[in-house]
Amino acid sequence: MKKIEDYIRTIVDFPHEGIMFRDVTTLFADPRGFRMAIDLMLHPYAGIEIDKVVGLEARGFILGGAIAHQLSVGFVPIRKKGKLPGAVISESYTLEYGEAIVEIHDDAIQEGEKILVVDDLLATGGTAEAGIKLVERLGGKIVSTSFIIDLPELGGRKKLEAMGKEVNVLCAFDGL
Amino acid sequence: MKKIEDYIRTIVDFPHEGIMFRDVTTLFADPRGFRMAIDLMLHPYAGIEIDKVVGLEARGFILGGAIAHQLSVGFVPIRKKGKLPGAVISESYTLEYGEAIVEIHDDAIQEGEKILVVDDLLATGGTAEAGIKLVERLGGKIVSTSFIIDLPELGGRKKLEAMGKEVNVLCAFDGL
Repeated sequence: MKKIEDYIRTIVDFPHEGIMFRDVTTLFADPRGFRMAIDLMLHPYAGIEIDKVVGLEARGFILGGAIAHQLSVGFVPIRKKGKLPGAVISESYTLEYGEAIVEIHDDAIQEGEKILVVDDLLATGGTAEAGIKLVERLGGKIVSTSFIIDLPELGGRKKLEAMGKEVNVLCAFDGL
Repeated sequence: MKKIEDYIRTIVDFPHEGIMFRDVTTLFADPRGFRMAIDLMLHPYAGIEIDKVVGLEARGFILGGAIAHQLSVGFVPIRKKGKLPGAVISESYTLEYGEAIVEIHDDAIQEGEKILVVDDLLATGGTAEAGIKLVERLGGKIVSTSFIIDLPELGGRKKLEAMGKEVNVLCAFDGL
């Protein structure tokens, strides 16, 4: 049987030279691949209390929507600056290639709610760290974080674990 | 029991003056609201053959991911220009406020595949029409289109039905 990593396509030099882009769209487009990915992401949370799933724009929305529906909990998007229509709080962070600002609606999470953060890829962990900060500033408690792909050489997993957060991943790739 | 429309927040003058923005994030953040929305979107497709769900960036990803997982089929994103890493085909369309280009991976759909297109909101139908054209250019057959909200005064539903497409919506709002 094919493994998760077998469904992931690598695109060289996207979005710029020197990056080996791990493309999950080929995983998502495959019925077995997508079903397996979501189900495997859910397994660690069987019997664990979660109030909301937070997904990071944009591929984290595809995963987060499926996981929140399966858990029968709410879904909250963290978006790039200017996309959310209501009152927001913001965090800026450094990317591999540039700087970015992410936002969350300031009423999207209540004090003490138990939150699962999901995205497709854990690289430097910058986006995930900003997302965790936004959740915690609203009083949310991070139960866990879940990703399809880890790029261990970029250190994101170590960064999140140093913050005391649980990290679950389905597969890892060497290199950038 | 609350209805779908009771969970949707209206934000006045977003993204610019004169627009009554129907904000589905309050629906998504509520456990009952989100579960109901996805389940109600799924009901018309029980027993209907669907090969892939196509979601329109970005809120269509949240819905499309959940629906594709529940149907055990693949998910394909249609994204704004420049976001997809592989080879794409493009369509441009007119928005209420501007012009935009959307893209799909040119290998994401195979000839004859049965496709469900999903998004949160049907306004003028411009984005959905562009999405349908992309799917059909790849040889996909549109089984149906599904939205949470219809804004009938903007004519999107009539436009899609004039193209011979089925349209399912969960609720409608008067005005823009």
